[in-house]
Order: sequence, then structure tokens, then C-alpha cells
Amino acid sequence: MLRIDLNCDMGESFGHYSLGTDKAMMNEITSANIACGFHAGDPAVMRKTVRLAISKGVAIGAHPGLPDLAGFGRRRMEVSPEEVFDMVTYQIGALNAFVKQEGGILRHVKAHGALYNMAATNKPLADAIADAVYGFDSSLVLFGLAGSEMIRSGIEKGLRTASEVFADRTYQEDGTLTPRSMPGALIKNPERAAEQVVQMVKDRTVTAVNGSKIGIEADTVCIHGDGEHALSFARVLRNVLGREHVNIQAF
Amino acid sequence: MLRIDLNCDMGESFGHYSLGTDKAMMNEITSANIACGFHAGDPAVMRKTVRLAISKGVAIGAHPGLPDLAGFGRRRMEVSPEEVFDMVTYQIGALNAFVKQEGGILRHVKAHGALYNMAATNKPLADAIADAVYGFDSSLVLFGLAGSEMIRSGIEKGLRTASEVFADRTYQEDGTLTPRSMPGALIKNPERAAEQVVQMVKDRTVTAVNGSKIGIEADTVCIHGDGEHALSFARVLRNVLGREHVNIQAF
Amino acid sequence: MLRIDLNCDMGESFGHYSLGTDKAMMNEITSANIACGFHAGDPAVMRKTVRLAISKGVAIGAHPGLPDLAGFGRRRMEVSPEEVFDMVTYQIGALNAFVKQEGGILRHVKAHGALYNMAATNKPLADAIADAVYGFDSSLVLFGLAGSEMIRSGIEKGLRTASEVFADRTYQEDGTLTPRSMPGALIKNPERAAEQVVQMVKDRTVTAVNGSKIGIEADTVCIHGDGEHALSFARVLRNVLGREHVNIQAF
Amino acid sequence: MLRIDLNCDMGESFGHYSLGTDKAMMNEITSANIACGFHAGDPAVMRKTVRLAISKGVAIGAHPGLPDLAGFGRRRMEVSPEEVFDMVTYQIGALNAFVKQEGGILRHVKAHGALYNMAATNKPLADAIADAVYGFDSSLVLFGLAGSEMIRSGIEKGLRTASEVFADRTYQEDGTLTPRSMPGALIKNPERAAEQVVQMVKDRTVTAVNGSKIGIEADTVCIHGDGEHALSFARVLRNVLGREHVNIQAF
Repeated sequence: MLRIDLNCDMGESFGHYSLGTDKAMMNEITSANIACGFHAGDPAVMRKTVRLAISKGVAIGAHPGLPDLAGFGRRRMEVSPEEVFDMVTYQIGALNAFVKQEGGILRHVKAHGALYNMAATNKPLADAIADAVYGFDSSLVLFGLAGSEMIRSGIEKGLRTASEVFADRTYQEDGTLTPRSMPGALIKNPERAAEQVVQMVKDRTVTAVNGSKIGIEADTVCIHGDGEHALSFARVLRNVLGREHVNIQAF
Repeated sequence: MLRIDLNCDMGESFGHYSLGTDKAMMNEITSANIACGFHAGDPAVMRKTVRLAISKGVAIGAHPGLPDLAGFGRRRMEVSPEEVFDMVTYQIGALNAFVKQEGGILRHVKAHGALYNMAATNKPLADAIADAVYGFDSSLVLFGLAGSEMIRSGIEKGLRTASEVFADRTYQEDGTLTPRSMPGALIKNPERAAEQVVQMVKDRTVTAVNGSKIGIEADTVCIHGDGEHALSFARVLRNVLGREHVNIQAF
Repeated sequence: MLRIDLNCDMGESFGHYSLGTDKAMMNEITSANIACGFHAGDPAVMRKTVRLAISKGVAIGAHPGLPDLAGFGRRRMEVSPEEVFDMVTYQIGALNAFVKQEGGILRHVKAHGALYNMAATNKPLADAIADAVYGFDSSLVLFGLAGSEMIRSGIEKGLRTASEVFADRTYQEDGTLTPRSMPGALIKNPERAAEQVVQMVKDRTVTAVNGSKIGIEADTVCIHGDGEHALSFARVLRNVLGREHVNIQAF
Repeated sequence: MLRIDLNCDMGESFGHYSLGTDKAMMNEITSANIACGFHAGDPAVMRKTVRLAISKGVAIGAHPGLPDLAGFGRRRMEVSPEEVFDMVTYQIGALNAFVKQEGGILRHVKAHGALYNMAATNKPLADAIADAVYGFDSSLVLFGLAGSEMIRSGIEKGLRTASEVFADRTYQEDGTLTPRSMPGALIKNPERAAEQVVQMVKDRTVTAVNGSKIGIEADTVCIHGDGEHALSFARVLRNVLGREHVNIQAF
């Protein structure tokens, strides 16, 4: 049976600051990547978000990021593999404590922002993340960009991996995402975006911007939690996937 | 057989900043309270300190503090029991991840600085800490000031507790420590300090500043890790305890 | 001529996090208290808010707070007068740099949140703030709760002070605000709130909750920048003040 | 008359953490670059260091860094010119407040660590720093690596600049420093290091590792404040410069 996971970044509020539409979005997804207090989130937000995910039956993942709240973890930093190994370990552990206390189970880990992007192409950093995850709990699923070093590292370490695809981004002939700075990088029509996902799941291909079909692994789709159209986009995607008999479920 | 645990705050370096004599002191103690990144410590320091403790066979404890690196966790903050519950959970989890990865076992939790002091007399905060510890792992030993609300909360929740005493501080008739601002608060002679501990362990009493003997529970002695005499003080204490046939061991 | 200043906390966004309705609210007020990066705000937000205030002709003030972004500066901390002296100095200087670069003039200083509340009753802390302000620029206006130690310290140091009153809070017979936890603490009707301000300005009195009239100094009214009714409340207040021929202007 | 300035990074302690030998080193130098709380330093340390510099007649400079206390400002971060413009402005202003309160005058600005290195080769970042400095006070001296973009940007904006050279580092034929990872990068003999500086000042040249003489501008020498030999190195340098009739003075 065809299946796909829908994941979304969650728990990105901090102290007095609110972000995202976690409560509504938690109804639409199957995996929640919960911020761990470095790029976003704080202990109170983490507990609240873990409780919400458990109450909705959504799979919980740690979403470690760079130690840069001011930059929301989106600014690349010159961090060593050892530093990444340690900061990912710290954050997984912190989130896991809430999951454990609240009676849930930690299912996956997905790096955030600049850390995610760096680990997609930088093998030592990808290895460091995979090592941190494996060393903490070898049954965790490691999320990463489809075709990236992150996925390769996870497989090499013996972790179960989830290749992440994007519904609303176009792909280039070499399988990489069209940079946001280029025209045609975004798929704004939710129906078309949903159909791209259907093709990914059914045919294990995506049609690149130059029209050629390329192979792609699609285990989980990244749903944006922010922005005014996030919720309606998620709903269209769910409808189209349902219509096409693609089962939406976590790992 | 008479026994006592010697505990010391460890892993208080941060980034480029070094603090303490962890490597030498780890030879003298039986329990290490490792800072968790809020008042001191960082992920790299945590891993290094966990490894050191494991290599020396020293019992590992989490040492959660207030989120105040600038104040080293020593400034009281108006935190709610919910905030304490969450911040302690977060920090225990973070430290535990390193312990787990490195093949050790987390044994105890001791609050740091202002959090320790507030929890000694503020029952809702003490309950919050005990709840966090119990909810994470009910087999953990909760450290607290002998006779404090922290110990009471731990017992009520069903946790094993360790009543902490001080070798180099004098006690008042009501069992509280003589405030540092008062004359005679400190016992500067290491031999005399060691003998106070021996009396605590053997007679389960301490002689207060007014000369009266009062009952005291002594499970663990706080060894200071900083200052020029810290190491020699620890060695004198160990010698005297050995001479008096008090076994030095963790829980 | 009767006059009053309307002040509002501004520039409380941080990094990826947005807060407040600064752009709209800047049209309604005469003094902006701009967060300085400790309890809220960051360098980019500070510059943007300074530019906005200058473009609207609104008087600019520094709004220093406790170093507690997670608690939005609302949690009391055990800080010494020396620490307050230094943290206020730092924050005034940081904000002033943007004001200077953008061609404006720093006009006032108002402590934020817990620091404001502590300085209202704690003379050494109030003195520390007044000293920091005076030592930086003796022509600055020091804002503080009407009748507070903050105002007293400012006067003693030789600073010009602005006694702050609240439109939407009731007062007790002793001139203090009715605590929010008590019934009748808030004036929810904007018209009535505005009339309380008119009475303060015209009669230099306020009618306490027990019906007695007490004297009050009212130089500036605190307008809340957050919450759904903030803007409409500000507008009602301006209308009533205009109708009553009270001139709205900064110092 | 031949002259050179000796500058040293100062005020790098933080909270409970001590770093450097500021008190002794302040006797050996003519310019102090004082950390501003982002990569190191805090308000209390800043005031104390400013007071020390004033008492010794040492010229005071702001030493802004990246917002990365954990990495001591040494990890490159993907910051935009706007972010650098704002963070440098903030830090200069913060330090200047202490200087102003203590009756001193801010003389120069030198970027720290990764920010210094990035600005040496990245023109937009160098421009952002020069703009921040100029906009705050056009009479400030901008310090930068001799021959770098930082110096070029400063000159273009109309700032007075100070070209910084290193006594204990060797230079390559193209005028850049030999990377620390290469053999022969360091000059360990203090006498030889001092003589390199003398040549720089007297001949306006340096002998590169390949033996060729290249031109170099030497206005100020960076003295390391940390490490066991820092003080004795500084003293040897002063002696040799004195012997060679090179006047040691700030701008």
C-alpha cells in the first residue's frame, strides 16, 4: 500500500513570543518535529507541544538546531562535527525527557534550518548527527533531505531513515531543489503541489523543471507550519492524497 | 557499617572559559553533580565530564540550575513551580543523553545555587523538582539540604533521598546553616571540619554554634570544587573519614 | 495649559518573533520606550523602531530590563544595585548608538517590567537606575511610577522626572495600584479610563476604589502596545483628552 | 619620529568566569580593545575594564564580536551586512556608555575574532563595520588587518585607520599571514618577533617566509592577553622597541 508521512516543525514559540498554528496544524500531520530550545522553543513550550502531539496521536521527533535564537537557526555557523555531535545529543535528550514524562515515545530526529542544510552536503556533519542519534537510541528514524548526505550517513550507521520531499518546491535535473532565488522555485498552486507528491509516492519520480523525470525517494513531506496559507495547503494536500489512495501515516 | 558519600559540583566550564579542577577532584569524590548548561556547562563540557566520571567510577548526577549564566545560577529568580518543573526536566534529560551515549547510568539529581536554596524552604518549588525527577526516572536519588523541604518533597513523592551536609559550615540550634554573613559561619580548619562530618555520620548529630547537640541526617557531604584549598581539603576529609572507619561511597 | 504625555513600550520583537503593533501605535503616542535587547528587542529591531519613532516625531526613550528574554523581563531577579547600575548603563548606551546614528536624540529612560516594579519600592535599586541615567546624560527624563522611589531617586539626583499613571488601572487609598489579582483592579471601559486621566491632569487627583480622592502627579500615561484593544483604547483616550483640552505632547 | 601602538584584547571575563591578565597587561599596552558582551564580557566587566584603562592612561576601544558567547566569537556565522551594521552599532554604544560615565573617551574600534577575519576579506561586511563606526562617531580610529578590506573600507568612509600587524606570526609573499596550520606560522622567539616589528616600523617592510621583502603598513601591534608567556612577551617587545627608539603610543 502506498503511504506517506506528513511532518511539520512545531513548538517554535519562545517565552512571551508566539509562533505558528500548532494546535490546528497538529490535526493535519502525522509527525511533529519539536524545537528543542536552541533555535526556538523553551522548556514550557516543549512540554505543551509534546502533550498536544500525544493527545492527537502524532509521532514526536526532536528538531535540534544551531544555538542561535536570534537567527532562528537559519544562519550557517562554522561548527565542528564534535560540536554538532554534542549539541544534537543535548537537544535530543532534553526533548526526550518531556516525552518520557508525558508517557510518549520519541520516534524521529530531524535537524533544523542551517544545520539541516549543512548536513545535506557536509558528510562529517551528517555523520555527527547520525552518530548522536544512533548513540542515543538506535531505533529512532533519521529524517533528511531525499538524496542527501544526511540520509547516506543514517543508512551507513544502521539507522532507519526517512527521505524528505517538498510539495511546494520544484526540483532540478540533478535532484536538488531549485534555489528560492530562481524563478519557478515555488509551486504556489496547492493542487499542483499535491500532485507532485502523488507522483513522487506512486512513480517514485519527480518531473524536474526542464521536463525530465528523475527518480526520488519520498517517505515524508515537509509541511510549513507558518504563513497564512499553511493550514489550507495542508488540507488540500491531504484531500488529494486521500483521493489518490495514498495512506497518510507516520513511521 | 558507617558510610558517607562525597559529592562535588562538576562540569562548570563554559565554551572558552575554564572553571574548577575537575580532573583532580574526580579522584577524591564519589558523586559528581554535573552542570547542565543553564547556569554553567555546555554540551562539550557535559560530555567530557560524563566521560571523566565514568572513567573514575564516580556516580553521575544532574545539577540543574536557573537559566542565568551571567549570575552562575546564584541569583534568585521569581520562577513558578511550573517553570521549575519544566527547566529541571529539560536539564535532566539533556545530561542523561550524554550519560546514555557514553554507557553510564544517571544516579542522582541535585539542584544548583539559588534553585537549591529556594527549594530548601519553598515547598511548591521543592515539589516541582521532585515531580520532575520522579517523572523522569523514579529510581533517581534526590539530593537536598538535610532537613529541608527538598528532602521532604522527595520522600513524599517516593524518591530515595540523600540529605546533604556541609563539612566547613557551622549549624545553628534550629538545624539551619549559620549565614555566611555571620561570624563563625565557616570552619576553616580542615581537621575540625572533617571531625564535624565524623560526628554527623557516627552520632547522627551536629554541635550547633551555641554548643547544643542537634540531630542531623548525613548521607552526602558537599565538597567545593573551586578555590585553592579545595583539593587539600577533600584529601584531609578523606583521611579523617578513613581513620574513623567511615566508608566513602556513592548510593 | 494642561498637558500629558502618552508613552508606550515599543520594539519588543526579537529575531524571527514579532510582537506588538508598533507601526500603528506610533501614530497615537508621544513617547516610545524602546526595548534594548535584554528582556526583548534586538539590534535590528532597535534600529527599525528608532527610525519609525523619528519619522513620526515621537520622543525616544531607552527601556532597559532584566537579562531574561525567556521571562520577558517580568520575573524578579535578585540583582544588586551595582548590577542594575551596569545593566542599565549598557542598555541606554546601546540604544543611544542607534538614536545617534539615525540623527535623533534620546529623551528619556523607563525601566521595564520587574525592574520597574522593584525600583518603585527598592530605594537602592532606584538609586542605581537614577545614577546610571544621570551619569550617562543628566538631561534625560527619568520615567517612574507616580509616587515611587524611582521618582524620588530621580529628583534627588537632579534629574527631570515624569510620573507615570495608568488609565486602565484603579488606585487604592494609599496611592498604589490595586493589584491585578483583586476585583476591580482594571477599568475596562475606555471612556471611564480616559476620564480618570482627565481628572488626574486637571485636578491632580484620582478617585481611589474606596471613593476617596487622593493627590497624584500625572506627567505621562502608560499605553499598552499589545492586545487586541490596545489601538482602539489609545484612540478613545486621545479623543477624550482632546475634547477636554488636554494637550498631548512629549517632554 | 618612529612610533607604534600596542593593542590587546581586554575585558573578556564573563560573570563567574575569569579570563586574561588584564590588570598586569594594562601596564604594557597603549590601546585596549574591550569586549562588549556578545562574544565575551558583561556590563560589570566592561565598567571595571574601562576604569582600569582610564586609570592607566590606556586608549579605549570597542571590540565588537559575533553573538556567540559559547564559541567566543571565533566561529564564522552567515551574517548579513545589515546584521553586522546593527550588532556593531549596538556594541559600540554599549561600551561607550561606560566610557562616558567614567569620564573617558572612546578612541577606536576593532572587530573581534571571526568578525575581524570575515571583514578582512569580505568587502560588504567591512563596509558595514566602517559605516557603523563612522555613523556613531567619525573621529574614531578603525583598527583592521594591514592590507585588508577592513582598512580599505575605513579609508573610503573617511575614517582614520590603524593597520594591525602581528609580532609573532610570519607573513607570506602576498602579504597575508601564514596560516596557523602551516609549519613556520609562528615566531616563538620573542626577540625575533620584536625585531620583525622593528623592521615593520623602520623599513615599512616585512620579510616573508620565502625570504622576499614586502611592504607593510604597521600602526599597531596585536599583543595576546592570554597564555602563560603573554606578559613576558609584551615586555620583551617593549624593551626591543625602546632600544630601537621606536616610540610606543596610542593614536
